[in-house]
Amino acid sequence: MNGKHVKLYIPGPIEVSKETFRAMSAPMIGHRSSDFADLYQQAHPHLQSLFGTKRPVYLSTSSAWGVMEASIRNLTAKKVLNCCGGAFSDKWLDVSLRCGKSAEALQVDWGRPIDPVALEEKISTGEFDVVTVVHNETSTGVQNPLTEIAGVLKKFPEVLLVVDTVSSFSAVPLCVDELEIDVLLTGSQKALALPPGLSLFTVSEKALARAAEIKDRGYYFDFLEFEKNAQKFMTPSTPCISLIHGLVWKLKQIHDEGPIERFSRHEKLNSMVHQWVESHGFEHFAPDGFRSKTLTCVSNNLDIDIPAWISEMRKRHSLIINGGYGKIKGKTFRISNMGDETEESISAMLNALSDTLP
Amino acid sequence: MNGKHVKLYIPGPIEVSKETFRAMSAPMIGHRSSDFADLYQQAHPHLQSLFGTKRPVYLSTSSAWGVMEASIRNLTAKKVLNCCGGAFSDKWLDVSLRCGKSAEALQVDWGRPIDPVALEEKISTGEFDVVTVVHNETSTGVQNPLTEIAGVLKKFPEVLLVVDTVSSFSAVPLCVDELEIDVLLTGSQKALALPPGLSLFTVSEKALARAAEIKDRGYYFDFLEFEKNAQKFMTPSTPCISLIHGLVWKLKQIHDEGPIERFSRHEKLNSMVHQWVESHGFEHFAPDGFRSKTLTCVSNNLDIDIPAWISEMRKRHSLIINGGYGKIKGKTFRISNMGDETEESISAMLNALSDTLP
Repeated sequence: MNGKHVKLYIPGPIEVSKETFRAMSAPMIGHRSSDFADLYQQAHPHLQSLFGTKRPVYLSTSSAWGVMEASIRNLTAKKVLNCCGGAFSDKWLDVSLRCGKSAEALQVDWGRPIDPVALEEKISTGEFDVVTVVHNETSTGVQNPLTEIAGVLKKFPEVLLVVDTVSSFSAVPLCVDELEIDVLLTGSQKALALPPGLSLFTVSEKALARAAEIKDRGYYFDFLEFEKNAQKFMTPSTPCISLIHGLVWKLKQIHDEGPIERFSRHEKLNSMVHQWVESHGFEHFAPDGFRSKTLTCVSNNLDIDIPAWISEMRKRHSLIINGGYGKIKGKTFRISNMGDETEESISAMLNALSDTLP
Repeated sequence: MNGKHVKLYIPGPIEVSKETFRAMSAPMIGHRSSDFADLYQQAHPHLQSLFGTKRPVYLSTSSAWGVMEASIRNLTAKKVLNCCGGAFSDKWLDVSLRCGKSAEALQVDWGRPIDPVALEEKISTGEFDVVTVVHNETSTGVQNPLTEIAGVLKKFPEVLLVVDTVSSFSAVPLCVDELEIDVLLTGSQKALALPPGLSLFTVSEKALARAAEIKDRGYYFDFLEFEKNAQKFMTPSTPCISLIHGLVWKLKQIHDEGPIERFSRHEKLNSMVHQWVESHGFEHFAPDGFRSKTLTCVSNNLDIDIPAWISEMRKRHSLIINGGYGKIKGKTFRISNMGDETEESISAMLNALSDTLP
């Protein structure tokens, strides 16, 4: 349709398999029918397992920003603390303000992880009732220390923790209930290797109780509507049925591979990318110990012409990586190892990168 | 995947063709790439033609309720008048209130059209700055007199007109610019015969100017973000790329059929359904002159067991109609003639209805 098939090694959307598209092509069903409830129900235990929760997991017909904004609208009564250190986490502060809420940044330099000690200090002021964290900052390749951050929040039961796992979900273990995370959200187009347009999230009972006290929540992203509908395996509004067909198929595939095996595979493929980075004289943008398992953000310390490189790999190998995002565009490049990749396909991609490196 | 293929003659979602699913299966592209801008640009002139506008048409990754709520949040400074006469238009009032806005209903009985005279009287109070109208009330089968309603609004340039054409769009002519409609919105899963998850809408310059003065618009549904991004054929958040691939294909198909021919086809198929209704002793729920061209809402004046009937047609003919919505469930049933239907397929469906009628 749009010419040649170019395989995406950008950090989302990524390559969607033929089998996924086939699953998405299942005949349409009524969204208020038991057919739909059955479909949702097929996905649900697998989702609970990946989220690490016994709570319902909701299906939102939106990209993740919808649910990120919804978390602000549904939960902020006093003031939200947005932990910022990259394009997406910084933007969350802006979105909080655009919702008319009091909001403040706990800012670190791009490429640095959130510091749990600074976080605790900030929360101790008593000013905040919500904290947002991007687990895997897609723009910088930093994976924030979620266990430590959640540990801080456990000391402040009146402060709700909202975590975006858009680019880490299903590639690393997540334990919502154990970490007492109040909202965990993700999107379909990253490690799940589905097309974009579907978000998944779960909300704690404590967060639902807070939402019940907040006015102006609206309808489309009202957490209480999601909860009420999920009890019947329904959604508040007409859901993106084809993507949910794809999700059910993908979750079965994940189940068959085994979550542990899947996490190991991502770790292995990620380390292959790291090896390539180091052996070619590049430096990591994120510090050791805080590097994403799904994508690698590489400093352009060799000062290569990244757009020319990407254009060349597209032309000669029909694949692309990403040339950096936001204010570090051109100063970094990003390589994804999410989704259905194998050692063979990652090797082939890395060879293509070497082959075309200016 | 979910057993036998049951063809949907419910008023959305409806049958999605194999060709549409094939178009939706195009390889994934980056949503911040020129590939995506090219895709959007392919859809755009066809969308402008169907909307009857020279303004940009926006792509929202949501179902239509998202944009319906967004219209309230973006545009209501004083008070919104929600024209109510069915499940969806009534709900719009509820959604307005949930957004924390002042709102009032101009209520007619379900099955009655909005009265332009009553509307003018109400607007004349000077209380309102936004009016919402559902063009084709999917729950009652009423098509409201849009030209007359828009004519009233032309007398009040300070009042914005928001029109939901979820179940009429692309099946009847629409002229946003000529009627001076401020927001016209629709969804993908009705007459366009795409899966749900994508909404389309256009916003007048006057409405954008109003939005610019409104705080708390948020981000995900901020009209000004849509406008800014549409100028570059982009979307504010990650869009549902596969549905947009499907949209481009569907719009080419509509273009090839010819819009006029498409409108006539829907009218013809609709009249076939009407004939069936009348020849079987049923009565229309909507009055003559105000009946939808895309679906027929039928009064259950013969007091038949509708669930048993639908179960029988599903079992014996692998198709279903809908057994009524909201408070008229069981008292009405609804038959869709939207999408890719032909005289042959509608005949076959009507024969199946006759064959299984209790």
